[in-house]
Amino acid sequence: MMDTTTPTDESGFGPIDTPTFVPVDPDFATRIRDSFVRQSFMATLGVRLGTVAPGRCDLLLPYRADLCQQNGFLHAGVTAALADSAAGYAAYSLMPADSDVLSIEFKHNLLAPAVGERFLARAEVQRAGRTIVVVQATVFAEADGRRKAVALMQATMMRMAVASG
Amino acid sequence: MMDTTTPTDESGFGPIDTPTFVPVDPDFATRIRDSFVRQSFMATLGVRLGTVAPGRCDLLLPYRADLCQQNGFLHAGVTAALADSAAGYAAYSLMPADSDVLSIEFKHNLLAPAVGERFLARAEVQRAGRTIVVVQATVFAEADGRRKAVALMQATMMRMAVASG
Amino acid sequence: MMDTTTPTDESGFGPIDTPTFVPVDPDFATRIRDSFVRQSFMATLGVRLGTVAPGRCDLLLPYRADLCQQNGFLHAGVTAALADSAAGYAAYSLMPADSDVLSIEFKHNLLAPAVGERFLARAEVQRAGRTIVVVQATVFAEADGRRKAVALMQATMMRMAVASG
Amino acid sequence: MMDTTTPTDESGFGPIDTPTFVPVDPDFATRIRDSFVRQSFMATLGVRLGTVAPGRCDLLLPYRADLCQQNGFLHAGVTAALADSAAGYAAYSLMPADSDVLSIEFKHNLLAPAVGERFLARAEVQRAGRTIVVVQATVFAEADGRRKAVALMQATMMRMAVASG
Repeated sequence: MMDTTTPTDESGFGPIDTPTFVPVDPDFATRIRDSFVRQSFMATLGVRLGTVAPGRCDLLLPYRADLCQQNGFLHAGVTAALADSAAGYAAYSLMPADSDVLSIEFKHNLLAPAVGERFLARAEVQRAGRTIVVVQATVFAEADGRRKAVALMQATMMRMAVASG
Repeated sequence: MMDTTTPTDESGFGPIDTPTFVPVDPDFATRIRDSFVRQSFMATLGVRLGTVAPGRCDLLLPYRADLCQQNGFLHAGVTAALADSAAGYAAYSLMPADSDVLSIEFKHNLLAPAVGERFLARAEVQRAGRTIVVVQATVFAEADGRRKAVALMQATMMRMAVASG
Repeated sequence: MMDTTTPTDESGFGPIDTPTFVPVDPDFATRIRDSFVRQSFMATLGVRLGTVAPGRCDLLLPYRADLCQQNGFLHAGVTAALADSAAGYAAYSLMPADSDVLSIEFKHNLLAPAVGERFLARAEVQRAGRTIVVVQATVFAEADGRRKAVALMQATMMRMAVASG
Repeated sequence: MMDTTTPTDESGFGPIDTPTFVPVDPDFATRIRDSFVRQSFMATLGVRLGTVAPGRCDLLLPYRADLCQQNGFLHAGVTAALADSAAGYAAYSLMPADSDVLSIEFKHNLLAPAVGERFLARAEVQRAGRTIVVVQATVFAEADGRRKAVALMQATMMRMAVASG
């Protein structure tokens, strides 16, 4: 959400070294899709995989009345699931082929009632280490063609080496 | 999870002032049940309301194969939903009758794969202010009659005044 | 850190309603400076107040060898103090004159060793409610004229009404 | 803070498998003390190392007027530093001799104004994996011989292998 790349920066600090994310596995998008279809909870919620790119993943969810809390807003567990899976796949895009990704933890802030016709979770890697990957995600609600941020996540993902097929 | 009440304490610090939670609304349990049945997502997941007490709430969930991530463990969004709702109702138990409860934010640590026959989220209020209530929750998995902590939550809940009926 | 404002957005979602922060108190910068000088810990650390703008605050800190953890990196408590104060003042900039600001909670991710000649914490409000304000902050380290993100914070601030002078 | 070990448990769940922490390095206390004295920021704050035990660490801090925020309460960066170092050493107590410990992230809730004559951070490991250790900590303030919880932390620590001396 933060724009920290303004070229004219009154802080007097030097230019920012922004990480460029080069995937080590060129087939990362296939690997993400294969994992996504194995996440049964995504199908249960009705989540669809959107754009995947190195260090980034979008997930989309239409509103459903059976995913709500007591006031008819999307339950925080649903926005958390959406943001967590998007964050996991954003991290996974940068991992070697013989990897699995696990959530270590996430922090989820609810900004506004999650009401709207459909929802978008957009996750972007902030720092990719060999084992630990830190990701930020925003959940947007769309209503009447306008998009509004309704939740934020800051998450820590972990690479697990797996026996390659 | 922490036991900080040991009477013999080598820190040399005085005894702990542990908050005693006295509900201001004697009908808090009814109010929680009424809100719980309006959370459509709890029914979608198959969650059942367990014990409610002043400053505490238990939620129970049998394992279901359609609530999982890519390895067949319960999805972190499910354990988060369970812990968040338990935390919300633990906070709600201490609020006046003309209140609604909203999640401001939560932090969720995954400790171990969420595998087992059924799951228990237990939430306990740590600090109840007039507007802000801080809650900790643990999610346990039960397998073969043994219970194991698989996730932790530290959450901030907020009281919203509502027009009384 | 996230750039979610790309005009061409393959998600198919509508344009983002980005909040525009209009301060209700035109003297917010004076109010922030008055509060900052009362934070004795900022002087103890050697922190300097940088740019303040509606919904934003920069804090600057030169490296000091007595602020470190066991490997000579800035201690996480120092980067947390820097980011927390910046986040608090970013929130405070949008509050009415008769307000004080309190931290409810924050989440701090360490991205890389906090080494460098000086440090910048930049905080930006993500959502400003009447009582609750959500802020994200990044701590940058500068070395050899280059700036690198070393820590992130996602924080929740609260407005407290105070008797006006 | 949570007591989840009550033998009579109306949830109907089986007994809890509580982890027993057996240190792999019998000299863990010496290792912690050696690391603690290298944390220059602890000396700057005036922190003293208290009890260390397998999976647990206490740190103590007398009140000082130069460690405060704008209202004379201990700054949240100070309580965070105290809790983070205690959490790190609680984790470190369970690591092999050829280890260093790094904070991945922490979440800090401020429960009440941090006022008092002295402060105690008590950290307890909740889950010790080979690489990742999850810790909870409570910061207590003591005034007039009574102790009160003023802040909570839920933290993730990481083991780094180091070349043994």
